[in-house]
Amino acid sequence: MNKHEIRLPKTKVGQKSFKKIIKAGKLLYGKAGYNSTSINDIISKAKVAAGTFYIYFDSKLALYLYLLDEYGHNIRRTATEATRNCLTRYEMEKAGLKAFIMYVKEDPLAYKLVWESLFVDPVIFKEYYTNFASSYINHLRPYVENGEIRDDIDLETVSYILMGISNFVGLQIVFNEKATENDVDFVVEESMKLLNEGIFKKHRT
Amino acid sequence: MNKHEIRLPKTKVGQKSFKKIIKAGKLLYGKAGYNSTSINDIISKAKVAAGTFYIYFDSKLALYLYLLDEYGHNIRRTATEATRNCLTRYEMEKAGLKAFIMYVKEDPLAYKLVWESLFVDPVIFKEYYTNFASSYINHLRPYVENGEIRDDIDLETVSYILMGISNFVGLQIVFNEKATENDVDFVVEESMKLLNEGIFKKHRT
Repeated sequence: MNKHEIRLPKTKVGQKSFKKIIKAGKLLYGKAGYNSTSINDIISKAKVAAGTFYIYFDSKLALYLYLLDEYGHNIRRTATEATRNCLTRYEMEKAGLKAFIMYVKEDPLAYKLVWESLFVDPVIFKEYYTNFASSYINHLRPYVENGEIRDDIDLETVSYILMGISNFVGLQIVFNEKATENDVDFVVEESMKLLNEGIFKKHRT
Repeated sequence: MNKHEIRLPKTKVGQKSFKKIIKAGKLLYGKAGYNSTSINDIISKAKVAAGTFYIYFDSKLALYLYLLDEYGHNIRRTATEATRNCLTRYEMEKAGLKAFIMYVKEDPLAYKLVWESLFVDPVIFKEYYTNFASSYINHLRPYVENGEIRDDIDLETVSYILMGISNFVGLQIVFNEKATENDVDFVVEESMKLLNEGIFKKHRT
């Protein structure tokens, strides 16, 4: 028996309650953290009847997994939309990086939700990033084959590096409360310089 | 009145109790997380008398801040030792990256401790990385001046990128339970290729 299942609402009233629970969960997991948040806290914050939570979610883990999954989908959809008209992998990395940073700039809870999995269950954390890396490798490989990306570099390492750059340059922007879209464009440009030619002068030929 | 002060032990017996508390705190903050861990949990895990905790720490936040500070010092000391005999910034980045990954490979709690600050107090999280970035910028600048690092790239962005690479290539190794020092050397080499020349072929000259 799976105790972490979710059941999507079938009525408009149900959708409203479902959304309230999602919103409350995001707020509370983001603020106090998963381990410190009880189902009662969520019910109380969402202002739904006590039994309503269980109509949709088996447990607070079920709600957390739903939120993490939703976030993963959002990030991927945002990246897909942003890169739709790109002709080269260079353009795709650039547009994807900007889209990621703009997303976390609007919703810094994104970091909390993913990194919180370290405390919810390290297996979830590992799966989140290993799945993301696998997907990244598959997206990069055709560009090694068509000659845009060098063929003498390990794509798994490149995938983790690209995830690291997105996440940390994202933090650079999130830390600056006054950051504008121009600032995002700036750090994206600087990141692309590095991806393009590295940072060292004398080693470049 | 500062409620987050710590007082170091002055006797050998005191040092023993202090170490027990440190060890218990690290274990519990790392497992359940800061918010779910009470001082009683720590006292009980450390097997010290109830009042002993307060001889050294004003609060559980004081203990957390001590652990975070200790970790920050360890990481910097490890990097300093590893890079002591390096003649170029290239060699320093390479040795520093390896030292960081070897450190988190031995002690994956390192990630938890730092990222947990998002839930303890986002200000601590922000300060941890902004301080680290400032220090990184200061260490990079002389190598822009001596011509080893290109002078047409923003050093703040480079600092966040380098932190991102360390953290995520570190995860790549931590996720692989069978990873050896050879595997660490491999991902370090691949990362240095990227820092050296980027990932794109056609944009390289």
